Amino acid sequence: MKYVARANRIKNILSTANIGASVKIQGWVRSRRDSKGGFSFLDISDGSCVAGIQVIADRSLPNYDSEVKHLTTGCSVEIEGNLQKSPGTKQQVEVLAKRINVIGWVDNPTAYPLQKKRHSLEFLREIAHLRARTRTFGAVSRIRNSLSNATHNFFQSRGFLYIHTPIITPSDCEGAGELFRVTAIELDNVPKNSNGEVDFRQDFFGRPVFLTVSGQLYAEAYASALTNVYTFGPTFRADNSNTPRHLAEFWMVEPEMAFCDLEGDMDLAESYVKHLFRSVLEDCTEDIEFLERLTPETKIIEPLTRFIDSEFERISYTEAVKLLEQSHQPFEVPVKWGTNLQSEHERFLCEKYFGKPIFIFNYPKQIKPFYMRVNEDNKTVAAMDLLIPRIGEIIGGSQREERLDVLQERMRELNIDPRDYWWYIDLRRFGSVPHSGFGLGFDRVVQFVSGMRNIRDVIPFPRTPNSAEL
Amino acid sequence: MKYVARANRIKNILSTANIGASVKIQGWVRSRRDSKGGFSFLDISDGSCVAGIQVIADRSLPNYDSEVKHLTTGCSVEIEGNLQKSPGTKQQVEVLAKRINVIGWVDNPTAYPLQKKRHSLEFLREIAHLRARTRTFGAVSRIRNSLSNATHNFFQSRGFLYIHTPIITPSDCEGAGELFRVTAIELDNVPKNSNGEVDFRQDFFGRPVFLTVSGQLYAEAYASALTNVYTFGPTFRADNSNTPRHLAEFWMVEPEMAFCDLEGDMDLAESYVKHLFRSVLEDCTEDIEFLERLTPETKIIEPLTRFIDSEFERISYTEAVKLLEQSHQPFEVPVKWGTNLQSEHERFLCEKYFGKPIFIFNYPKQIKPFYMRVNEDNKTVAAMDLLIPRIGEIIGGSQREERLDVLQERMRELNIDPRDYWWYIDLRRFGSVPHSGFGLGFDRVVQFVSGMRNIRDVIPFPRTPNSAEL
Repeated sequence: MKYVARANRIKNILSTANIGASVKIQGWVRSRRDSKGGFSFLDISDGSCVAGIQVIADRSLPNYDSEVKHLTTGCSVEIEGNLQKSPGTKQQVEVLAKRINVIGWVDNPTAYPLQKKRHSLEFLREIAHLRARTRTFGAVSRIRNSLSNATHNFFQSRGFLYIHTPIITPSDCEGAGELFRVTAIELDNVPKNSNGEVDFRQDFFGRPVFLTVSGQLYAEAYASALTNVYTFGPTFRADNSNTPRHLAEFWMVEPEMAFCDLEGDMDLAESYVKHLFRSVLEDCTEDIEFLERLTPETKIIEPLTRFIDSEFERISYTEAVKLLEQSHQPFEVPVKWGTNLQSEHERFLCEKYFGKPIFIFNYPKQIKPFYMRVNEDNKTVAAMDLLIPRIGEIIGGSQREERLDVLQERMRELNIDPRDYWWYIDLRRFGSVPHSGFGLGFDRVVQFVSGMRNIRDVIPFPRTPNSAEL
Repeated sequence: MKYVARANRIKNILSTANIGASVKIQGWVRSRRDSKGGFSFLDISDGSCVAGIQVIADRSLPNYDSEVKHLTTGCSVEIEGNLQKSPGTKQQVEVLAKRINVIGWVDNPTAYPLQKKRHSLEFLREIAHLRARTRTFGAVSRIRNSLSNATHNFFQSRGFLYIHTPIITPSDCEGAGELFRVTAIELDNVPKNSNGEVDFRQDFFGRPVFLTVSGQLYAEAYASALTNVYTFGPTFRADNSNTPRHLAEFWMVEPEMAFCDLEGDMDLAESYVKHLFRSVLEDCTEDIEFLERLTPETKIIEPLTRFIDSEFERISYTEAVKLLEQSHQPFEVPVKWGTNLQSEHERFLCEKYFGKPIFIFNYPKQIKPFYMRVNEDNKTVAAMDLLIPRIGEIIGGSQREERLDVLQERMRELNIDPRDYWWYIDLRRFGSVPHSGFGLGFDRVVQFVSGMRNIRDVIPFPRTPNSAEL
């Protein structure tokens, strides 16, 4: 029983549709329907595509009465047979079974949580170990895979090096969010020093460490040597945000480019996002069509196609504020230059005013972290966010402050201890270059492409406040 | 200053060697040598390849005396010029500079830690933020990138889906090693319940959670729906192992295949490892040649080439023990059936006896975890390790126990609470299938291919006991 050769996957069988061919299928029963004529239809899935393949089993099978007629949703089977033209309209081909080998039964079929009926997403979240067996989560998994693969293809083909920045870090990347602590200390016996403070010298790393909120600072070090690099890994926020848009553990893609300004940064972001959309539309056409049929109120293909073909809008924060002021919309929070745009403001601009992805750039200095490059006006920094309809922010990026004196001045202003960032400051002392980068919230892109409303449904085992059961 | 187009990278300029072409280079000065004739040679690197490109700068440049003659190692520059045939033997082409723009000086050149001389790897470990600027760490970074990319290409081309298994987990994957705890509790104020125990209900997830030691159990759930999946992500061990082979944070690749037995598992592992070796030899020829020249006592290319072309050896643990007993080698720890093979035993078999990669399979049940499939002899389990010369174990895998009753019996034997694994047990109750998988220690493969002795030198910012400074 060797690992499955590609030709045997249902996706390939259906797409080649080679009538008469002898095939071997390994998968799980989605449903069984018995016909009066002494035969049964089985719908078999192996996770390679949305569609299952229809198998005709009849009395000529020695185990037809003893086994085949007892198959229920979820049983695993190995089936050999021949492809024949399907009289139905759903698929071109079906399998006439010559042998059906039951590999694994479902112990107590009524207790099997996945029945043929449609289950709520909330219910499926509680059985995250089984939900990939549904069409919906199969489709989401394939979309997520396709977007991951498109990410690597995009950067690799442009000579970016994939780097693994650390997950455990002493740095907090300047308050991007609340931090999870990592420790090997026994919590019921925390060592204290003579001042009564926690004695981190006795912890594994001899100092306090946290889960990373961003690989950016590390990526800057590597871009300052290898020019173009990117990360793709998990990042963490201990914010108590119980919303459909936030995860405590999520995946980010963070390219960083030396000799690149904010315009180049936006150019790269736009190309990358369009590449993602284009690739996934091509790779996962059926998955996306299936998900769109599930929730017809959420259009997926039309906006994806439109966004690929149009230029993303680029407006400055100052212009954005003007547009919002002139809009006379009844916003809950009034718009004011110098404060963060609220979700309602962003939605208005992105969804209603422009109706397409928009970059907002050059944000006020006082609402952005120390590492963003101060613009000539000394009021704004070279930051940018990319917003897309329905999801909101999927990218946040900036040109980084490469000038030693300006960086040090900003750190003083914000009371940041330069000793915590000695190595980051070094990068400005030794052959500093203008450089830029961004972070793309990968899970949000999966959300956009899959049409899933809740971000917990686009990652296999979501981590949120009070929820890490399995 | 847009992000660098591919054609401008030094690697491409050198490989196309288009005499007369006008080029623009952005990078860092490796060295400057002044000639008596009133011109200077600059060696410029941009991290795209081992080689720098030679630039000729002469008095015709307006800033020759004021700037160019003051350039030191590490300065960043942008240079425009024309490619001309190089009179030297090292490279085919060099650049005759028409413009040299100094982007960033080195503040106090004598204080710059990277001088032209060769630095010890120990010293470079202390300046992990700068070491990617050396030829050695540039080469290692490109090799690591190439192996990552080859990993995705291998699995994607075979229809495996890349899945993101959780990093924060309540499960300990059955004692694969010591665990790091993840918490949002303030360590100087740990909440206790009325029994005086730590009250994890007040922690972020409402329960104790840890950093993952393996994504395997989760990958099994997804393979039980999507057939073939793989993970590629960080994993963690809080073992106090201060050795050149261990990291507290390292990257693992873990494929998992439904309908696959141990033989299929070894087949996949062998194909994958050979694919890695083949790809990296092709992609990173110059990097590997460079690293081999650095430490001529460590052969890299010859074994890589030989391993690609030969079948890996496969012997059972029982045969391995016999061979070791018959070898009459003076081992420090005597060989005994039923105990773990020691590193000295593995090295003898792999390096001396067979002189190539070897699989050892069917290990004694008592030294392996509960999830490995019990063989018919009821003494061994369907486990396998892949050992390679110089490095030792790079892969550990197994066929998983898919039989509900046997799994439950094993858990009882090992005093494992089934409530902690309810969802894992579910997979055996609902359409269970024979399945197998393995974990490849990615950093160790980078070690093998790069020839680096210490695993801390193959990951950008290594995490080891008492070491997470930057």
